[in-house]
Amino acid sequence: MAVWSERMLIEKIKKACNTEAEGLIASIGDDCCEIKASGSFLISTDSLIDSVHFNRDFHPPHLLGRKSIAVNLSDIAAMGGRPRFVLLSLCLPEDLEWEWIVAWLDGALEILKEYNCVLIGGDTVKAGELAFTVTVLGEPGAASAAIYRSGAKDGDTVWVSGVLGSAGAGLGLLSSDQLTSDFLKSLDGSLLEAHLNPVPKVALGLKLAQSGMVSSMQDISDGLATDLAHICGASGVSSIIDFKLLPYHLDLHTVADILETTVEDLILRAGEDYQLLFTVMKGKESELCDFLQAKQQEITRIGRVCSGKGVFLQKKVGIEEITFQGYEH
Amino acid sequence: MAVWSERMLIEKIKKACNTEAEGLIASIGDDCCEIKASGSFLISTDSLIDSVHFNRDFHPPHLLGRKSIAVNLSDIAAMGGRPRFVLLSLCLPEDLEWEWIVAWLDGALEILKEYNCVLIGGDTVKAGELAFTVTVLGEPGAASAAIYRSGAKDGDTVWVSGVLGSAGAGLGLLSSDQLTSDFLKSLDGSLLEAHLNPVPKVALGLKLAQSGMVSSMQDISDGLATDLAHICGASGVSSIIDFKLLPYHLDLHTVADILETTVEDLILRAGEDYQLLFTVMKGKESELCDFLQAKQQEITRIGRVCSGKGVFLQKKVGIEEITFQGYEH
Repeated sequence: MAVWSERMLIEKIKKACNTEAEGLIASIGDDCCEIKASGSFLISTDSLIDSVHFNRDFHPPHLLGRKSIAVNLSDIAAMGGRPRFVLLSLCLPEDLEWEWIVAWLDGALEILKEYNCVLIGGDTVKAGELAFTVTVLGEPGAASAAIYRSGAKDGDTVWVSGVLGSAGAGLGLLSSDQLTSDFLKSLDGSLLEAHLNPVPKVALGLKLAQSGMVSSMQDISDGLATDLAHICGASGVSSIIDFKLLPYHLDLHTVADILETTVEDLILRAGEDYQLLFTVMKGKESELCDFLQAKQQEITRIGRVCSGKGVFLQKKVGIEEITFQGYEH
Repeated sequence: MAVWSERMLIEKIKKACNTEAEGLIASIGDDCCEIKASGSFLISTDSLIDSVHFNRDFHPPHLLGRKSIAVNLSDIAAMGGRPRFVLLSLCLPEDLEWEWIVAWLDGALEILKEYNCVLIGGDTVKAGELAFTVTVLGEPGAASAAIYRSGAKDGDTVWVSGVLGSAGAGLGLLSSDQLTSDFLKSLDGSLLEAHLNPVPKVALGLKLAQSGMVSSMQDISDGLATDLAHICGASGVSSIIDFKLLPYHLDLHTVADILETTVEDLILRAGEDYQLLFTVMKGKESELCDFLQAKQQEITRIGRVCSGKGVFLQKKVGIEEITFQGYEH
């Protein structure tokens, strides 16, 4: 275990900080960073706590560094924005290995680079508990405004990107004491990957904002049942989703059996998929698909927006209410 | 002990969040907040950790709420900016009393209101360790640019606001097991107050920026010896300060004896004074005093900027180097 000091860490972060990005006036080294502003800024802050939001027993630090940033980039994607700047607040226990910290930081910097987003500052403190607070600033995409949760209207349709339930399945598998690593390796890697290394849907979010056909949007962090309830609550509408339309990885059946849960629970309530959940303006569905197909983005219509309150699930037999049945972070 | 849930807390914070402040497009309730941008934004983020940055045994939650915000407002003041928006990330242990949380939040909201700064969002999570991460956004004052650490020049003079060492003395007294509360009450309250409830120097910082006569500035959080070293390092200069010019509360002599330390240590190395440390352009000293006297701001010249490297202390007999001898947060 290499000994480390806050000064070592700050020096490493300083070196990693961009000082010459577009719109960046002053980076790390002053009491504040300073960024040039035009139009508007989207801002989000999220804290990830050891043993609450992640498990170091199975989460490699490099992937955890990526994920700590990814979940924040996903918040910008959820508004149809372009991530620009990040501030990191690292709370690190004294006995944390320097190699672990370096791997975490390398992962964080790697994904920031992929999304053309710049680390501009933050804070490092010694703490009893490992925790990361990431603040991200973004801008609405060129020639488009941000998309809020409040714009869904009766008659709109409900859509998601990608597949649902994979992250919950991955977390369940990784958390299970009874599975051998050989068994885990035999699975399609995408379930584990969905938990360990989620991909923020930034390009898709931007494209959806540019389309002008999306009436509301957010990312799926607490599970479809809860996140759709947020949209419905903010928009003053209800929605009904059709179970048979929900997209998921076919291995979910096997995994649900192993984990003694159901595919439905994984899809609707497990959370952390970081897919986009959005509503498309009435009558614009095929036009939107045409607009997006050029980019081969995978989106699926899963239901519709109605007047009233609540989120409902249409199953083979009957309808049940699932409002706010997700995971509470 | 009242039972609480994250939902109770989020509801309370939502109610406290302004939704209609100037420049605020979208407040809490979406994946991001959105603020209107013009000119530039100053941004700072700081984490305060239980038992590292504060001690709940003697820090009343209401004052700790104020201080958690104040130290961030001080970062904006240190750039000559006007605080505008705040995001809070609260990491709260499950067994924390609801009354404590409410008192903390009331203190935080109270000081935000005093500085016309608006809570726009954040995150609340349950954690093993109590921690607050505050992100503050500000704007340079009207008709003035931000002031950086890097502008000090040979021939400038070094100044501070207020008195130094009070916060360190206050913390020392509050931390001492041997002092009765009767004795503490017999002291001038300003030493304890300096630790428990520091006042960010926002109005003075703005005025200094508006003067156009200040070449560099930061706040004193790590102690004069370290913070002046930051300015000298960023500016590529050295400085020499004169011990007999340093302003401090006269009780510091008694307190230094009680705490078995020295007045010099409290002034130079204890930190957390949150006073402004700045350099005034050569030949502008009396003009600046005239400019500020209208507002009766208390500032003191304590030394001068020279070429070279390092921070030096002129004492009755001889000069010693004190570069980076402050407290490392």
